[in-house]
Amino acid sequence: MGRWEPNARGRLQKAALELYAERGFDATTVAEIAARAGLTERTFFRHFADKREVLFGGSQAMEEHLVKATVSALAQEPGPGPVEAITAALAEMADELFVGEHRSLARHRHAVITAHPELRERELIKMASLAAAVAGALREHGISEPGASLAAEAGTAIFKVAFERWVSAPGDRPLSAFIHETAATLKSVTGS
Amino acid sequence: MGRWEPNARGRLQKAALELYAERGFDATTVAEIAARAGLTERTFFRHFADKREVLFGGSQAMEEHLVKATVSALAQEPGPGPVEAITAALAEMADELFVGEHRSLARHRHAVITAHPELRERELIKMASLAAAVAGALREHGISEPGASLAAEAGTAIFKVAFERWVSAPGDRPLSAFIHETAATLKSVTGS
Repeated sequence: MGRWEPNARGRLQKAALELYAERGFDATTVAEIAARAGLTERTFFRHFADKREVLFGGSQAMEEHLVKATVSALAQEPGPGPVEAITAALAEMADELFVGEHRSLARHRHAVITAHPELRERELIKMASLAAAVAGALREHGISEPGASLAAEAGTAIFKVAFERWVSAPGDRPLSAFIHETAATLKSVTGS
Repeated sequence: MGRWEPNARGRLQKAALELYAERGFDATTVAEIAARAGLTERTFFRHFADKREVLFGGSQAMEEHLVKATVSALAQEPGPGPVEAITAALAEMADELFVGEHRSLARHRHAVITAHPELRERELIKMASLAAAVAGALREHGISEPGASLAAEAGTAIFKVAFERWVSAPGDRPLSAFIHETAATLKSVTGS
């Protein structure tokens, strides 16, 4: 292992997202990302397997965070409904992971992915995997099928729609506010 | 154009699905599909661009059917909620497109896709495109955002979950019954 570079991962991520936005994902090389971050290609590959992993490397952490928060929301008294629990978990995750400089990184990332069909597909796969993980956690905590899968799908729909509104909204309104608002809208269009 | 072969498309589709199930999607050749159907490769390519299109060639028809049925459900009196309208449209589409021999074709198709990561990704893209088309139709008929997108996502979640239950259920219960049941479960987990 080479010498330790302070916050190398974060610097590489920021440099990569800037370059993807400026030149497009396909036209950006790892050498350029490393140069912009003031680091070597070797350091890049110590943190990321490839250019694409810069965009999706956080998926696992997001999934784990969300599953854990969902389980803890289900344990609250009085017991929330499944979608209510996932909504609380999504809002908690948003307040943890999508604040400060992560906010602008998330917006850059979204623009890059939206502009690129292959990355959009990868994002769909990520969301499907997230839904499967949350459905599994719900089943383990006593929610039967098809309720568990439906609640998980509803949760990812809430996140997806809230996230898109958040990235395109001006101002500083937090993602968690969009999540709560979107969940209320889902309730109303589902019309009980 | 060659001579007209009675129901060539249907015969090719049936032969392809049987072979994909027996040998796997990757190991099956167009020559084998044509031979099993008693037709030529040339006839295959008159109906399908490639092996994959046999599985996804019906997506466009399904999308058009669903959009049309949604719009007509929205026009019913008393005006149904957006998810209620999509549910009625899904059930109508199911009773039209997933009956008789299409029922067993749909089951074969599902098994082939589930076993193959790349085809599963293609299926996710198809569902995302379906949701976008339905959301567009809802917006055109006065449902504002984010309600239109959320209702469309909820609709595809209902279809996905209902379809999976239907293909793995024994007996002859129609897909539309699973759709109505799944929609009721979504309402209950959304918990209003």
